Order: sequence, then structure tokens, then C-alpha cells
Amino acid sequence: MTAIPRATTAGFGFEVHARCAHTRARTGVFHTPHGSVETPIFMPVGTKGTVKGVLPDRLRSLGARMVLANTYHLHLRPGEETVAALGGLHGFMGWDGPILTDSGGYQVFSLARDARVGEDGVELPSIVDGSRVRLGPESATDVQMTLGADVIMAFDHCPRDPLDRALVEDATDRTHRWLDRCVARWRERGGLETGRALFGIVQGGAFEDLRARSVEAVLAHDLVGTAIGGVSVGEDRGAMRAAVAAATPLLPEDRPRYLMGVGTPLDFFDAIEQGVDMFDCVTPTRHGRTHQAFTPEGRINLRNRQWARDPRPLQEGCDCPACAGGFSRGYVRHLCKSDEILGAVLISLHNLRTFHRLFERIRAAIPRGELPALREQVFAEGPGW
Amino acid sequence: MTAIPRATTAGFGFEVHARCAHTRARTGVFHTPHGSVETPIFMPVGTKGTVKGVLPDRLRSLGARMVLANTYHLHLRPGEETVAALGGLHGFMGWDGPILTDSGGYQVFSLARDARVGEDGVELPSIVDGSRVRLGPESATDVQMTLGADVIMAFDHCPRDPLDRALVEDATDRTHRWLDRCVARWRERGGLETGRALFGIVQGGAFEDLRARSVEAVLAHDLVGTAIGGVSVGEDRGAMRAAVAAATPLLPEDRPRYLMGVGTPLDFFDAIEQGVDMFDCVTPTRHGRTHQAFTPEGRINLRNRQWARDPRPLQEGCDCPACAGGFSRGYVRHLCKSDEILGAVLISLHNLRTFHRLFERIRAAIPRGELPALREQVFAEGPGW
Repeated sequence: MTAIPRATTAGFGFEVHARCAHTRARTGVFHTPHGSVETPIFMPVGTKGTVKGVLPDRLRSLGARMVLANTYHLHLRPGEETVAALGGLHGFMGWDGPILTDSGGYQVFSLARDARVGEDGVELPSIVDGSRVRLGPESATDVQMTLGADVIMAFDHCPRDPLDRALVEDATDRTHRWLDRCVARWRERGGLETGRALFGIVQGGAFEDLRARSVEAVLAHDLVGTAIGGVSVGEDRGAMRAAVAAATPLLPEDRPRYLMGVGTPLDFFDAIEQGVDMFDCVTPTRHGRTHQAFTPEGRINLRNRQWARDPRPLQEGCDCPACAGGFSRGYVRHLCKSDEILGAVLISLHNLRTFHRLFERIRAAIPRGELPALREQVFAEGPGW
Repeated sequence: MTAIPRATTAGFGFEVHARCAHTRARTGVFHTPHGSVETPIFMPVGTKGTVKGVLPDRLRSLGARMVLANTYHLHLRPGEETVAALGGLHGFMGWDGPILTDSGGYQVFSLARDARVGEDGVELPSIVDGSRVRLGPESATDVQMTLGADVIMAFDHCPRDPLDRALVEDATDRTHRWLDRCVARWRERGGLETGRALFGIVQGGAFEDLRARSVEAVLAHDLVGTAIGGVSVGEDRGAMRAAVAAATPLLPEDRPRYLMGVGTPLDFFDAIEQGVDMFDCVTPTRHGRTHQAFTPEGRINLRNRQWARDPRPLQEGCDCPACAGGFSRGYVRHLCKSDEILGAVLISLHNLRTFHRLFERIRAAIPRGELPALREQVFAEGPGW
């Protein structure tokens, strides 16, 4: 494996700035053609090219610096050619910072009952009109290259049950074969010089040896960064922790590590202590839309009668636009009960800010050797949802 | 009638700053306990205590300075006592500028098929649970005093058909009897000293003599401002213009005049040229939610296929967050087709900014004697929807 230059290649690079004195955690900067972001980073999810209900300027003011979009959904609607015609993903969604697209591989898991997996890819139902959609290593790479994110993901096979060894081994080996094809296609289409960096994905389920084998297969390619997939698929926290612990120490120090689709503060601390740098999760906005706010009391449902005349903000001392804006729980409840858009929006803003603020604290704590203390403090302040 | 002091009484007052050289139009400042606003003013409508989908800070940046809320809706949910417990309307909805509440009288019109009108008020169906709700001059005043807006409206009877003389005369006379009762109740509850100014409402339908009689009845009370009601209820533009022309010249020069529920740029120019100072209308956000944007081409439906790959903003040169933020018609169409909240939000922001910008231009034109020229220019730029 050749060393990735510290100076950026085609605008990409990763520098470790500080290491935790107690764990494998590190802070760093990930350079992309659309700017550099500090890690560890939490990336909000804009599935269909919008972080639901939040304008990009507001999103930035909440602390977001890099966002996700979804290949499967944008391929179906409006189609990658339309996105390209409207300026590529950055111009399309009005986000001038870095963007990452997932490959659609996760939909193989989430729509697994209706997905048919073959050696050349998968056939999935369209959420738009129910028709069959095919995605495979080449087409997922093509779609992503056309969408134009800074980071694109290899098309992987995320097995339904991370504890079923035969299933996991089969999916993991297929993921490796697909990675070879993704890399080939990506290089054919210009590779890194196009301003799109391909990340490989480590699978292997809950099995340490399969995770190690998968790391080896992914590192056979000289890629800008590596993702750990196949977690947060219904397994318990111990299994997720084991999967991360099996893979992360084997990943190169000088490249960013991205744990896909995770999760909660406990997951963040666990993974960051293993050396993970990047995270994404839909919960801040998804729970916002179902009127659930992350607070030190836990996840509270704002539709509940108990908040009807509660003058307190969602969280005392919170600096989000909902709490600092002076909106009471009683008002937010009224909005939610009245099906006013602003209810879901205010809770989403609060939840997003809560995640970004946690990452700001983590990035500040690591260089000071205070990550374990911060972990204690965070869980003393609240349940971590 | 005693002259209202130019210096404010209990924080209220109105000053004319400039008069149009060609029409009865004027610019002025309306002082309230929550700040002073320049007139002519357009007030966005926050029916249930929120201008749908827009945070107050954003609303202010669009040019909004005074907003409306709805007595009938807030009485039903969450109830005025809850609003009062959560800081009154200003604290409740996080709007520190002036607020005006309508009286619920308009719902007698809009829910007329299901409304029973008697001498003591009306019985209406609840939009929350279908139960019967009673509102009358005393209760509507009570609800509004408890909600705590700066300007509260008399409870009026808006007749269903402004051309049916018997119906209009009956409703207009009832409105006057109700006004006496509203004023009495308002004074009992502390009147102007409480920081809530009561506006009377002129009815009279399309009949000049009834409008004049109504003005006389309203001016019998020494109130801070006067509204013209019973317009924008389905009559044609000529009838509306005649109703405004019949009432406005009879209203005192030194008090603000508010034309309720109007309307379009043509209506605004017509009424401002008669000397009207205040307007409200739901269309910017209502059309936003149905994905219709006000543009120089007219009202365009963003769900239409023709915009699918259109890279232009909703309106070239517009300074709203949607257009200046670089969001293309193609992107907005994608959001609308995908039922993403942001579609309705972006169009609402554009529509609101379009209205506020028009009023900024009108306020700038009046002192320079350029109102007729501006009128021509506006309708040369576009159809005025």
C-alpha cells in the first residue's frame, strides 16, 4: 500500500492533529475539494438532497460541515442526470461544503425482503412507483460519479443478520468482489482527479476474523478513506462494539474512518475511543418529525399532555434556535398537536444542534486528554437517549 | 370625538410622515407597546400562533414587522389560558414585535354554513373536534385580552353576500351593537392601559350609504384605529374598490386604517391610494404550501414538469432566501414532488419576501411622489398575480 500524501491529492487528504492520551481517539482534519472539516465529525443525512426541513444556512449555523445524500433515492427521483444538470449535488441542494453519498447498499438491507441479490448487484422496488430498480457496483458508482459528491461509497452487501456466519461470509466476500469492480469503474471514470474520492466498506458482521479479512480486502486498494458497514442493523451494542474493535485497529492511521449509520452518544464515544472519525445518522431529523426531542431527561415526546403549559425550553441552557429562541415546551407541543410544520422543524433543529454540540465537546476534549472525563460528564448530565 | 395624542397613549399612536402628491396615500408610523412599524404595512398571518413553516428570526429578516394570529383557532387550541400561561402571544410564539388578533368574526363568514348567528354572538363548529363553540362580543374580547396581542379586533358580523342589501344591513347594524358591547368589555378589562388597543370594524357590504353609516357608528368610539371588513369575501374587484372608496375618506386622518384580508398587488395599490395603511393576507404561505410561487410570470406551480431541469431561481434578481440562496426551480420542483417540507418552506419564504419587498417599494415611493409610477412599473414587471 502506498502512503497517501499528507499534502492533498486532488484536494483530498487527512491529517491527525491530536491523539487521546487514554484511548485510540484522535482529532484531525479531512480535506476535500469543498473544504476541510474537523474530525470526529457528525454528518446530518439529507436523503433526498435536503436535510428535512432545514435550510443550508441554518444547518451550517447548527454546526454541520459535511452532509450525506442517498444514491438510491436520488437515482429514483429526480435522477442523477437531473441533479447533474442542476449543478451537481452541491449546486442542487445549495450546500457548498463537502457531501458524501451512500451507495445504495444499505437499501439492500433496509428493503431486504423485497431485494434480490445476485453477483451483478441487486434488484429493489422503487419507493416512487414500485417498479424494479437495479443497482450494482458499476451502476452505483456511475450514479454517484454523476451526482458529484466529494466522497462516494463502494456498493456493498450488508447482510441482514450479522450473527449468521454463512450469510455474513457470503455477503462479505461479495462486497470485496464488488469493491474491485467499483474501484475499476471509478478509475475508468477518472478516479480521484474528478474530485470524487471512493471509500471502501468493511463488512464481516459480528465475526472478528471476517472483519479482519474484510479490512485486508479493502486496504488492497489505495483509497482516501475506509468505512465500517454492517453495523446498526439491529444487533446489540456489544456486537457493534466488537465489530468496530475488530476492524478499527487494523485501519491505517493516516486515513479517515467512517462508521456508517451510527447512532447514539454511547455509540459515538465507544467508536471514537477506537479511532473512528466520521459518523452519520438520521435520528435528529427523523425523531424531530415524530416530535421527539433529545434532552438530558431522555427522549421526550412533545405531543404529550404533560408539556401543555410547560414554560421551559426543550433543554435549559441549550444554544439551539428552538431553546435559545425562547420557544417553550408548551408552544412546541401546541405546534405538534396542531400539525404545524414548525413543530417538527424546531425539534429537528434542537436535535441536530445537540449532536453537533456533542461533537464539538469531543473534539475539544481529545487534545486535552479529557475524553474519558467528558464521557462521564455527558452520561452524568443525561441518559444519552 | 377627541383627538388622539400624537405622543403615544399607553404606547400607542400614529403619525403620518408623508403624503402622496397624487393620491390619498400616506406613509406613517404606527406605535405599539411592542415597537413602532412603518406604514403602509403588510402583516403575515400566523393563524395558530405560527406563520406556517417560518421561524420568527427568518420572518423578521424577510421584512415582517407585525403579524396576525387568529382568535377562533387559538381559543380552540391550545386555549387562551394556556397561551397566557406561556407568556401571552408574544412569548408563546417568540415574536417580540407587534401582534394583531382577529376577533373570530371572519370565521362566521368562512364557516357560515355551519354558523348560527344570534344577538349574543355565534355558534360555530370546532375545527378540532366538531363540538359547538360560542363566540360573541364579550367572549371574543375576553379571549383576545387574554391572548395579549397589541391590537385586538371588535367582534363583527361579516355578511355572506355583500350585495344582498337586507342581509348586509342586518349584519352591519348587528356589528355596531356588538361594537358597543366589545368596547364596554374592553374598557371593563382595563382598555388601552392594558397595552391592547381595540380597533372597530366598518361593515356595510357594497353599499355606500351603509359603509358611511358604519363609519359613523365606529367613530362614535374613540379607538386607536379602524378596520374595513367585509371585503375579499368573493365580491368582484369593483365592489371591493367601491367599498373601500366609500369608507376610507370618512376615516380620521390621524389614525391607522386596516383593510382586512386583502390581497393582491392591484388591491394593495387601489387601497393604499385611498389611504389604507395596514393589510394582512394568508396567500404567501397558503400558496407556498400548495407549491405556487408569485413571480413576474404570474403564479407558477412548482410541481409542473416544465421546471424539472430549470436552473433559474423562482425569480431572477429576487433577494429572498430561496432565490438568493441559489435554489433552482428544478430543485424546488424535486422537493415539492418528493413532499419534502423544504419545498413549501422555500416557496413561502419567496412569497413572503415578495410581498414585503413590494411594501418597501411603496413606502419609498409615496414621499417621492412616485406611487403612480411605481404602480405602472410593478404591472409592467409582471401580472400582479
